[in-house]
Amino acid sequence: MTTAPAFESATYQAPGRDDISQAHARIAPRIHRTPILTSTSLNALAGARFFFKCENLQKTGSFKIRGAANAILSLSNEQAARGIVTQSSGNHGAAVACAAAWRGVPAYIVMPKNAPKVKIQAIEAYGGKITFCEPKVSSRNQTCDRVQAETGAHLVHPYDDDRIIAGQATAAKEFLEEIPDLDAIIAPVSGGGLLSGTCLGAQGIRKDIRIIGCEPAHADDAYRSLATGTLQSLESSDTIADGLRASLSPRTFAILRRHVDRILLVTEEEIISTARLVWERMKIIVEPSSAVALAPLLKPGVVKSLNLPPRTDGTPPKLGVIFSGGNVDLNALPWLP
Amino acid sequence: MTTAPAFESATYQAPGRDDISQAHARIAPRIHRTPILTSTSLNALAGARFFFKCENLQKTGSFKIRGAANAILSLSNEQAARGIVTQSSGNHGAAVACAAAWRGVPAYIVMPKNAPKVKIQAIEAYGGKITFCEPKVSSRNQTCDRVQAETGAHLVHPYDDDRIIAGQATAAKEFLEEIPDLDAIIAPVSGGGLLSGTCLGAQGIRKDIRIIGCEPAHADDAYRSLATGTLQSLESSDTIADGLRASLSPRTFAILRRHVDRILLVTEEEIISTARLVWERMKIIVEPSSAVALAPLLKPGVVKSLNLPPRTDGTPPKLGVIFSGGNVDLNALPWLP
Repeated sequence: MTTAPAFESATYQAPGRDDISQAHARIAPRIHRTPILTSTSLNALAGARFFFKCENLQKTGSFKIRGAANAILSLSNEQAARGIVTQSSGNHGAAVACAAAWRGVPAYIVMPKNAPKVKIQAIEAYGGKITFCEPKVSSRNQTCDRVQAETGAHLVHPYDDDRIIAGQATAAKEFLEEIPDLDAIIAPVSGGGLLSGTCLGAQGIRKDIRIIGCEPAHADDAYRSLATGTLQSLESSDTIADGLRASLSPRTFAILRRHVDRILLVTEEEIISTARLVWERMKIIVEPSSAVALAPLLKPGVVKSLNLPPRTDGTPPKLGVIFSGGNVDLNALPWLP
Repeated sequence: MTTAPAFESATYQAPGRDDISQAHARIAPRIHRTPILTSTSLNALAGARFFFKCENLQKTGSFKIRGAANAILSLSNEQAARGIVTQSSGNHGAAVACAAAWRGVPAYIVMPKNAPKVKIQAIEAYGGKITFCEPKVSSRNQTCDRVQAETGAHLVHPYDDDRIIAGQATAAKEFLEEIPDLDAIIAPVSGGGLLSGTCLGAQGIRKDIRIIGCEPAHADDAYRSLATGTLQSLESSDTIADGLRASLSPRTFAILRRHVDRILLVTEEEIISTARLVWERMKIIVEPSSAVALAPLLKPGVVKSLNLPPRTDGTPPKLGVIFSGGNVDLNALPWLP
């Protein structure tokens, strides 16, 4: 990994409630308090009561601005002066470019050459300077190292960074502030920044809340890592969920092992049909990565199989789903020829 | 018109603040309190501060459920027993079908045969019984009369009805409850139900607020009616804003004459490009009719030309835009070949 210093899982202190509150205070004036939407027809399909935290409606079109803004706004002027460098499949890059522009410093973004055009354009619109690499973890890391060496920019890794995790945790904090009695929060998992933050942000407020991750079967490293108890790698991935092509780091793996109830997998077809269903029923634009968090819950029997403790009032479980982003190419919808 | 009784403009008492509060109390438990979203990039384009009341995220995908629910939930069991009949280009039909289902009575919907397939399917999904007619006002009225005579159903006209107008007014009421210092509210105009309700709902709370209507140049009867002071007809229309193909009634004309500041016109191209811009920047699905309310404000000089009173703090005007609906065919986006 580009952040390189040895990570000691046994002694690691993940961001706590105070870190997350400070992150929230730092970023709240800059970001949207995203709405939490509901849908009777999706409830009926799943036999649950869904609450959707719409980070697709967040600034830059994804939750990533939470972590990037927290990291970049917490830097000293000296640390920020030579700019920010990162690697990203798109949304984190746009978030870094946006937050760097708020600081008035350059943003150097390393991204795989197969990243969606719309995400490339968004980074450019925020003034980010892009270097393309091969769509492999090794190439991303090497290219990022090189750009960092050339520019002297400050690295803001997309997830292997406590400032990022504390920032992403603010979405779950807002969720529980508004719907305090959620039985579970469900989020997609890729590198694990959002899911780690969701664990810490939610269980820091309510220790008993269940946290569930969802992952494309085509990029199932988190599932395999938690199943085996050993960090599994993912050299490349071709899932349509272009925001979910990264793999866990030792840091995020350590957090998920302690806090995550389970990981659910979904097929590419399920991702596409769920994305379309959300557009159609909820009138919001979610990218495929967002649909990953809902897709498994719509399959017959899955909500029941979660074995959530029954609610005292006998009503169906209250499930909080984080829609992670809404950046899609409107000229190339996944369900159109 | 199907409601036929002579309308006396001089003695007409439009719904007042109490009627609107009662409507709100009646429907609030059933409908969504829709979010009000903002967009820095759209603000920058227009030199204004926009607040978007997202009725596209409303139940049934449009504001129409407000009026339909108010009308149908206020009926006695006897009045409702033989069902509800209405004519609609789509959204009002879905709203009537939905609210009639809540009452457990049939809904008979007369709609033009060129209505979008997705709107037809929505009505069918709510259990509505559809009769198609020619896409002309005269054919719609005649067909509606015939179905009403055959079924004995209770007519809930899409806009020429005080119960409908009071229901639609609740969107503006919610708007001002959350953003009390809006300088103007902008809404699309077709038959004038939403715009009339917006006038009464907003100016009932703050008499000085400006109300502006927006209309496709291809269906400009409200513009011509207000310009000439005489109700103008619109026999047919082919605008892409399929929710805006109706024309004012004497009732809505009477309200708009008293309360509306002006009507702005937009071209078909402006409607399409604005709809796409909203999808792209705000990650929400708006139908072309919704884009009609924003499109004119994005044209250079238009916000300035509104001559809104300068704000005491010298900041740009606060403009409340009502996004009326989000029902589009996801297989046939207007900007795709």
